[in-house]
Amino acid sequence: MAISLGHNRYGKAETRVVRIYRDDERHEIRDLNVSTSLRGEFADAHLLGDQGNVLPTDSQRNTCFAFAKSHGIGEIETYALALARHFVDDVTPVAEARVEVEEFCWDRVAVDGVDHAHTWVRRGQEVRTAAVTVGADGAWVVSGLEDLVLLKSTGSEFAGFLTDPYTTLEPTHDRVMATSLTARWRHTGTDDDWQASYASVRRSLVERFAAVHSLALQQTLWEMGRAALEAHQGLAEIRLSAPNRHHNLVDLTPFGLDNPGEVFHAADRPYGLIEAAVVRDDAPPAPGAWQDLPGFV
Amino acid sequence: MAISLGHNRYGKAETRVVRIYRDDERHEIRDLNVSTSLRGEFADAHLLGDQGNVLPTDSQRNTCFAFAKSHGIGEIETYALALARHFVDDVTPVAEARVEVEEFCWDRVAVDGVDHAHTWVRRGQEVRTAAVTVGADGAWVVSGLEDLVLLKSTGSEFAGFLTDPYTTLEPTHDRVMATSLTARWRHTGTDDDWQASYASVRRSLVERFAAVHSLALQQTLWEMGRAALEAHQGLAEIRLSAPNRHHNLVDLTPFGLDNPGEVFHAADRPYGLIEAAVVRDDAPPAPGAWQDLPGFV
Amino acid sequence: MAISLGHNRYGKAETRVVRIYRDDERHEIRDLNVSTSLRGEFADAHLLGDQGNVLPTDSQRNTCFAFAKSHGIGEIETYALALARHFVDDVTPVAEARVEVEEFCWDRVAVDGVDHAHTWVRRGQEVRTAAVTVGADGAWVVSGLEDLVLLKSTGSEFAGFLTDPYTTLEPTHDRVMATSLTARWRHTGTDDDWQASYASVRRSLVERFAAVHSLALQQTLWEMGRAALEAHQGLAEIRLSAPNRHHNLVDLTPFGLDNPGEVFHAADRPYGLIEAAVVRDDAPPAPGAWQDLPGFV
Amino acid sequence: MAISLGHNRYGKAETRVVRIYRDDERHEIRDLNVSTSLRGEFADAHLLGDQGNVLPTDSQRNTCFAFAKSHGIGEIETYALALARHFVDDVTPVAEARVEVEEFCWDRVAVDGVDHAHTWVRRGQEVRTAAVTVGADGAWVVSGLEDLVLLKSTGSEFAGFLTDPYTTLEPTHDRVMATSLTARWRHTGTDDDWQASYASVRRSLVERFAAVHSLALQQTLWEMGRAALEAHQGLAEIRLSAPNRHHNLVDLTPFGLDNPGEVFHAADRPYGLIEAAVVRDDAPPAPGAWQDLPGFV
Repeated sequence: MAISLGHNRYGKAETRVVRIYRDDERHEIRDLNVSTSLRGEFADAHLLGDQGNVLPTDSQRNTCFAFAKSHGIGEIETYALALARHFVDDVTPVAEARVEVEEFCWDRVAVDGVDHAHTWVRRGQEVRTAAVTVGADGAWVVSGLEDLVLLKSTGSEFAGFLTDPYTTLEPTHDRVMATSLTARWRHTGTDDDWQASYASVRRSLVERFAAVHSLALQQTLWEMGRAALEAHQGLAEIRLSAPNRHHNLVDLTPFGLDNPGEVFHAADRPYGLIEAAVVRDDAPPAPGAWQDLPGFV
Repeated sequence: MAISLGHNRYGKAETRVVRIYRDDERHEIRDLNVSTSLRGEFADAHLLGDQGNVLPTDSQRNTCFAFAKSHGIGEIETYALALARHFVDDVTPVAEARVEVEEFCWDRVAVDGVDHAHTWVRRGQEVRTAAVTVGADGAWVVSGLEDLVLLKSTGSEFAGFLTDPYTTLEPTHDRVMATSLTARWRHTGTDDDWQASYASVRRSLVERFAAVHSLALQQTLWEMGRAALEAHQGLAEIRLSAPNRHHNLVDLTPFGLDNPGEVFHAADRPYGLIEAAVVRDDAPPAPGAWQDLPGFV
Repeated sequence: MAISLGHNRYGKAETRVVRIYRDDERHEIRDLNVSTSLRGEFADAHLLGDQGNVLPTDSQRNTCFAFAKSHGIGEIETYALALARHFVDDVTPVAEARVEVEEFCWDRVAVDGVDHAHTWVRRGQEVRTAAVTVGADGAWVVSGLEDLVLLKSTGSEFAGFLTDPYTTLEPTHDRVMATSLTARWRHTGTDDDWQASYASVRRSLVERFAAVHSLALQQTLWEMGRAALEAHQGLAEIRLSAPNRHHNLVDLTPFGLDNPGEVFHAADRPYGLIEAAVVRDDAPPAPGAWQDLPGFV
Repeated sequence: MAISLGHNRYGKAETRVVRIYRDDERHEIRDLNVSTSLRGEFADAHLLGDQGNVLPTDSQRNTCFAFAKSHGIGEIETYALALARHFVDDVTPVAEARVEVEEFCWDRVAVDGVDHAHTWVRRGQEVRTAAVTVGADGAWVVSGLEDLVLLKSTGSEFAGFLTDPYTTLEPTHDRVMATSLTARWRHTGTDDDWQASYASVRRSLVERFAAVHSLALQQTLWEMGRAALEAHQGLAEIRLSAPNRHHNLVDLTPFGLDNPGEVFHAADRPYGLIEAAVVRDDAPPAPGAWQDLPGFV
């Protein structure tokens, strides 16, 4: 009975790269959190402690900073592709590279109504993401967003559900529905207009969340995902993960008050967690690398 | 040698109150985190375990929800004043009440360019705050904001500083300056136009941060605070707490690249922490209750 | 070109179940965070908004509490198995259930040197975990631990590594090595002695971390995983994820001080992240369900 | 109407200093989070942007590291005193220095039952703290602890409380009581046996929490604080802040199960927050500097 090394990978997580473009007086900013991860011929590092094939994670961090200068950070997908391709092409033992990027967005500050040239305020909690994988099967780009916090105060029901001996929930035809959305969408190609497709997908998601009369969060997610795929032909698949941020109607009758959908307690835990993928039938299948993205199978 | 009970207080922290206004088809939302704290004749609760004077924290929570309905949540300062006055006026053993409120703001979602009637997305990380104290000395209102994250990519120096044997820092005449601002301002009265004064103070802070050519974060804070007091006569004092979110220029010369203020590492810890108060000379002095606000003396 | 629903699942996350055993004067405590997730015939919930097959997540939460009483919480693996089997066996539309449990451990308080019957203090940051999947392919049990924070102040090198044009790191033959370990191990059966195997695996991991003279974190992880599999025949595989909590030697020469491995800066970000699986060759293959465990493929 | 600079201070927060003692084969470790804060003649830095009196926070960080070597870290109180006195004595514009330290504790790992010479595992969530102030009024030492998480499964009541129209809580004569304790105690001198007094105070707090039959958390806190002062003559005052981590009994009757104090839901928010000081009557009064310690007045 033998014991073997199985899957393994290593890299540098959460390098906080900030790039200022100061080509003229009006600066631009890119604010990123970059994680790299490499697979390849690293068995001896484990079995023998031989580091001859191991590019230090410190060097990977340096590369993230250097590429921010030499290649620039236009869109995070192009930056991540450049990094991942570099590791696979230029570092011999590397067979596959994954680069994940979170982008924190900033709004330009206005002074006396005029946009300021070099001052910003952080925009929202929402984070734009990219996860790029380059390996023997080619390159794959998954774009996404995290912590997009949405709430609608009506237009949401939950009724007609299955009951069992542990069911005490009452059906409702008017509730608050809120979530902190994570979405990830896989592109069929590697040269999309990343900014435009991001804006398009985000708009589809937000607008459908608002417009759909919801019979369940599942239905809303399906409608959101479908709208995104319909609006953008370059997408093979979108995956949505939506915690149900429960807003419980507070019983005010002990205090002589009615509460027709007005006062809620925003609960922390537990929370429902609804996850769904929406896929385009003729799209190429998901690569193995897609499996271990944040999210689910 | 005797041992005595000293200062004490108790209350319910972090009640998450969400209030929907649905008077017509266009809903409004208020999303709060409310903490109450009471002082008074509570010695026997400690010394004897006698709860006869102790209004349960559970009742305080209920009151937060009930007042959201009965008194409404116009501005958080008025809501907090109503709660604090109620505890002092209507609960006999209570001598002083503090109510602290955090407000999480939401932006209305647009669908096809039109504001949606009942769907929102969380706005920024910024939190609006109010801390109201009602006691024998009257009522005091302190408004504020937290987590207002600001960054400027130039227009900031740090040079000419004191050096000692432990100083290795080089002076710089062009750096990134970033902070996550906490500000608290004390009103001279209790019936300000809270929304207007909030907007006015916030604008002063942000615009001065952008416009001042900074020789030090201390100077910027002073200018910000002074501008806020100048713009709003109803303020007695403003206190600013500003962690210096260091953006360290990355040395790219080992990789044959120059870096003229373009690529930075956003560091986590440690961080400078600069705190300053700006006060109006003829304003009434700060009450004792101001002392234990979040922040510093 | 059609668009379809892909993989989907839903459940209740993070139900905080605390179970007190008070069969005699000496109480026992189990403190859990339980998450359930179901797959099955839920297409209509998405496509049509029809909830007829959907057992509310609220009912799943109720079941977690009820089973804590009716089935008890002996070991978290048996509790999770009971829950998962119930969902698959008793709720018709459910084809597969995943139950994930975190256990927070407590130490009994001593008073005058004697263990107290009903008072505890939280033990460490370490969390014991179980993830149980029940589906058409049978039942799978994965045990684990999280946030086991380990540090060794010597006996760790990193040298002889691959260099590239972005490498500036100097090799070292004596460094601090620290990590916050996550480990997950898959059992071949479903009726192990869970408490004993947990203790055995944990001991193997900790003792090897201490005893191995480390040439790299990869080598240490391999040795830890191999020791765990060797010590416990019932394990098919173990997966380890180890952030490298860098402790950087501080340069004290500007202050006229040497620093022979004595003063370090504990850095936050970025950090190396090393992940590896160690597998038993004759063990049954990992089921599909193993793929989407927290961790990696 | 003039506007003036009020109170101000600045420093370096959260320098993560790790000190290894390797005088022989059996190493020792000190793991600290150090924050410094200075007051003094810093008006010109604010009003004029003149940094001539400002010792950079970077230098303060360097000093924390250098003192870890030159002065060592015996007990955190002595280390903090040395740092604070240095800033006041050696940096001319500094009138007052505050140094706050958090210490993260480690347990030595056992291998084959023998303590290992240089490997540790992080002990608990509990953090030991010290806050030292040196100024014109002399030096003050406040020791403490944070995140000491305690729970008792019986021996706790809450009944006979005041009720008002917003009270719905039912009295109980047997409940779970749990808290995450913060305690800070002020020493009358500056040369206590810090390790012994820490152990003594901690033991008093934990043992009284366990032994007192609690009629309210207020009563328990008073008993804990009094026991600490009685056991240790060198203490002038102790302040306790105790969030009430509510464990709500789950109603299992809908499922045909009784629940005699066995199954609880551990709630997150809101939570009761009880704060109390216990003081020795003949102790010297608290200095102004004590006012702005974390905690309350």
